[in-house]
Amino acid sequence: PDLPKPFKRYQVAPVWRAEKPGQGRFREFVQCDVDIVGTASLAADAECVQVDSAVMDALGVPDVQIRVNNRRILEGLSTLAGGADANRMKAVFRAIDKLDKQGPDTVRELLVSQDGLTPDQAARVLAFVSITGSNAERLAQARELMAGVETAQKGLDELQTVLDLAAAGGVPADRVQVDLSIARGLDYYTGTVFETFLLGLPGFGSVMSGGRYDGLISLFIGKDMPAVGISVGLDRLLAGLIELKRVEAPKSVVEVYVAVFDEETRPAALALAARLRAAGLRVEVSYEAGKIGKQFKHADRLGARVALVIGPEELAQNAVALKDLRAGAQAVVPLDGIEAKVRQALC
Amino acid sequence: PDLPKPFKRYQVAPVWRAEKPGQGRFREFVQCDVDIVGTASLAADAECVQVDSAVMDALGVPDVQIRVNNRRILEGLSTLAGGADANRMKAVFRAIDKLDKQGPDTVRELLVSQDGLTPDQAARVLAFVSITGSNAERLAQARELMAGVETAQKGLDELQTVLDLAAAGGVPADRVQVDLSIARGLDYYTGTVFETFLLGLPGFGSVMSGGRYDGLISLFIGKDMPAVGISVGLDRLLAGLIELKRVEAPKSVVEVYVAVFDEETRPAALALAARLRAAGLRVEVSYEAGKIGKQFKHADRLGARVALVIGPEELAQNAVALKDLRAGAQAVVPLDGIEAKVRQALC
Repeated sequence: PDLPKPFKRYQVAPVWRAEKPGQGRFREFVQCDVDIVGTASLAADAECVQVDSAVMDALGVPDVQIRVNNRRILEGLSTLAGGADANRMKAVFRAIDKLDKQGPDTVRELLVSQDGLTPDQAARVLAFVSITGSNAERLAQARELMAGVETAQKGLDELQTVLDLAAAGGVPADRVQVDLSIARGLDYYTGTVFETFLLGLPGFGSVMSGGRYDGLISLFIGKDMPAVGISVGLDRLLAGLIELKRVEAPKSVVEVYVAVFDEETRPAALALAARLRAAGLRVEVSYEAGKIGKQFKHADRLGARVALVIGPEELAQNAVALKDLRAGAQAVVPLDGIEAKVRQALC
Repeated sequence: PDLPKPFKRYQVAPVWRAEKPGQGRFREFVQCDVDIVGTASLAADAECVQVDSAVMDALGVPDVQIRVNNRRILEGLSTLAGGADANRMKAVFRAIDKLDKQGPDTVRELLVSQDGLTPDQAARVLAFVSITGSNAERLAQARELMAGVETAQKGLDELQTVLDLAAAGGVPADRVQVDLSIARGLDYYTGTVFETFLLGLPGFGSVMSGGRYDGLISLFIGKDMPAVGISVGLDRLLAGLIELKRVEAPKSVVEVYVAVFDEETRPAALALAARLRAAGLRVEVSYEAGKIGKQFKHADRLGARVALVIGPEELAQNAVALKDLRAGAQAVVPLDGIEAKVRQALC
């Protein structure tokens, strides 16, 4: 309550949910949240779209589609479906969720047989969620279908404003898509909702999602507190990028492995490692001593490209044995200037 | 189980505990954990001291004291106190914990009256935890007091090795202190234990702590899995650094505030902000429109140093009104080259 409003925050942290795990769908996962609390301005909703677009640019994934909808339009849809009561709305949302997987015919039938819509109502819902075309065409068709449904018209106005402001803020127009079928499962969204899809993995699910939740905070503090937010599902995004072969997960970040000849020479190994780390190299020192061949194999498994070892002979000569783990070549080099030698071998 | 061992990891994440909150002591706080799993080598313990020292250097807080002890020495201490059973050990640990706050006389009395030690046993415990001097002197005195107590001698050997290896790895000697009174509350520590104190705030508590916990993972997986780790208590460290006036918490990170004249000119404001952000500046755009004086005040409260606004006149001239919020000066400048103008005002 003491924070000046609007309050903007971000948080990167693990979150949990009770859910059936699947590909890129975990019970514990990391969310990167961005929230803007204390303003009902649609400029904040548009700013979330800007953040989404900027994050994807920064991650080197510009080929995404940010899908935007507004829950008020869906509320209007349940009016078309016979009433805006909670059960009717849930049925409509369920139908929308199933559209992708089960197809329009099955969903139409379920709406009638299971949810009690008249065939005409079911047809209207299907017509609505099947709207296609450019953003402008979709909004125009929706306006027509929703003629006289005030909530929906307000939602359409809001959606238009969010699109306009996001474009003014520099979000590429072809990255933002009006998607009238997005509901987002969570009950707390009240207005704009966002989802983000990797173009190369259309069925993979959203990697960055969110929306406006004007009623949620007030449940806890008992006073009005409008808010909007968006969140990267980091693990799912990463799973997607790995599937798209956009990122490679290295075995480790180790560049240089310092083997340890014996416990007597360990201090020399530690001093060498400290020196290389001070030069900015990523260095690991063996916890074992002896069996150098085994240590070199471990270094290779870690993905290190250079292995070093100081035995008693090297110690006496103020030298280091350097093995290039890719080329297989090994040489004894002076300790003096070792940083440059190692950098050379890493190139 | 599939990870190659030794496995090294770090994690920065919120953790929770049921505890009475206090200065720099929270129920939810952020820990920065470093753990090395799958090796019993004391080189890993020493590496934790290196990490500690390197972290404090990186944070610009080199004036710290890393206090190190070994739980085996404390186990030996309870042998001196009449037996290594769990109750006796707990009494000894409790006594050690209270030493700082209640003084040696009270603690000696409690050991006798409350924990059932003989006066001679209590005197030995007090003699032990009151050992002072250089690290070498402390270790030598402890060896003498613990003559014949095998566990303690092993602990002293381990402690000596950790000190030697940390020094070989480049940790400044005056930063590491043998502290035979450190127990660490948690029952799962089995060997080395670490705490880290800010020299300017001796009574503030440890800001980076940890130790070896060889028995903990095996409780869950049913096989041996030695491990050692250390962790920054980020919130407490930050509270300490704020108290020491080493860091200043800015009101926000905003450098430039773009005010919005009216909803018609909002797109121009958003385009301006996008342009400045692309130039690397930290920019916030008002969610409100109109009442420019109020918006400038808000910008000032946020700590922004420059406020910009594009009204209809500026828009017609392809210009921006720029207000230097510190100097109070205001001027209309061309939109062309605005990045440089803003940078100049920020200097």
